[in-house]
Amino acid sequence: MSDRSIAPHIRRILYSRFIASSPYRVRIALALKGLEFEYVGVNLQQGEQYRPEFLALNPQGLVPALQDGDALLTQSLAIIEYLEERYPTPPLLPGGALDRARIRAMALVCACEIHPLNNLSVLNYLKGPLQLSAAAVDEWYRHWVSRGLAALESLVRPHYRDGQFCYGAQPTLADVVLVPQMNNARRFQCDLTPYPLLTAIDARCRALPAFAAAAPERQPDAPRA
Amino acid sequence: MSDRSIAPHIRRILYSRFIASSPYRVRIALALKGLEFEYVGVNLQQGEQYRPEFLALNPQGLVPALQDGDALLTQSLAIIEYLEERYPTPPLLPGGALDRARIRAMALVCACEIHPLNNLSVLNYLKGPLQLSAAAVDEWYRHWVSRGLAALESLVRPHYRDGQFCYGAQPTLADVVLVPQMNNARRFQCDLTPYPLLTAIDARCRALPAFAAAAPERQPDAPRA
Repeated sequence: MSDRSIAPHIRRILYSRFIASSPYRVRIALALKGLEFEYVGVNLQQGEQYRPEFLALNPQGLVPALQDGDALLTQSLAIIEYLEERYPTPPLLPGGALDRARIRAMALVCACEIHPLNNLSVLNYLKGPLQLSAAAVDEWYRHWVSRGLAALESLVRPHYRDGQFCYGAQPTLADVVLVPQMNNARRFQCDLTPYPLLTAIDARCRALPAFAAAAPERQPDAPRA
Repeated sequence: MSDRSIAPHIRRILYSRFIASSPYRVRIALALKGLEFEYVGVNLQQGEQYRPEFLALNPQGLVPALQDGDALLTQSLAIIEYLEERYPTPPLLPGGALDRARIRAMALVCACEIHPLNNLSVLNYLKGPLQLSAAAVDEWYRHWVSRGLAALESLVRPHYRDGQFCYGAQPTLADVVLVPQMNNARRFQCDLTPYPLLTAIDARCRALPAFAAAAPERQPDAPRA
């Protein structure tokens, strides 16, 4: 019995931006759990996140925000933990407390040590107030990507077996966060050859229907090809 | 019955640095749950986190790391979620899924939008490769603090009542993460007057024995007064 059949009346709206990696995480989690949603694109490049009607939803002016019935949720990792508690099947945090801690630690490497340093507001600060050249901004971006992915590769290695994911035989929160980060790394031409496990896992994930449905180019607000 | 009485034989070691805010979070969580631990100071300023014996524990070369019996844990938020699952009383994530999502979202504002931008490795990159002046580094620091704390103040306000904490009448994960962030803000002379709720909550927390025991100046590796 799916969760949708328990609560078919729940209206679920994701405020998203096709290319932003935090809403991409939430799209993957929703798709893995088979939860349908309405998609509302928020054009960050045009400042739509600062419009009063959006700030009324999320005073931080950030995507993602998720309306799940009466609940209005922000912060991608908090949203995914909520989905995990409300809709536990399939689990994104399987196993016991130690397994879950390892999966969360992997996710936090991307979420706390790469992504915050490379998001739009930081890049704007580097280009604006700090007047950095485009080359220096790219170098900054790649520095934090390479540092973080090297750490993540070393966290994944001890538990990894051929054909598996970051932590075991099914995708977990670690993979949900990894795939958008790898997409960002490719966009900024980061060298991914030092991370063969992450590269293999990323490709394996993207071949799955749930990850494919969440891909930036598949979203309604993506530019037409 | 306390968790200690269930498992009195567990050896618990926290690898920490007195002044660093991520291990400070874990010290508060351990103290709130009444969990004793041995303290091992890692001198980040002298590069002890890159010694082979520490990298064998945490290949990322970061504190905190927590040895909890046979389990070796990294990443402060993953450690605290683990402690919450293994030692649920008192809860740091009380209530239902929506309450927990709101508490986690508050914690993530500090953990993902302030702290990663202001940690030692980032400040070193600004001073080193980017050759920023001390004044420009301070301005960077305060920029992300003020932006993040303003967001957090606005998240806390709708739920706040006089005499309470970030989310309700008991300290939660949100307070565990807030207090070290406020300590950092004071160290860098950030103006805290725009955040009256956070300032009141921070003071209320620090008056509690668990928060006091976790304070930087109370740790074995803190400089003697």
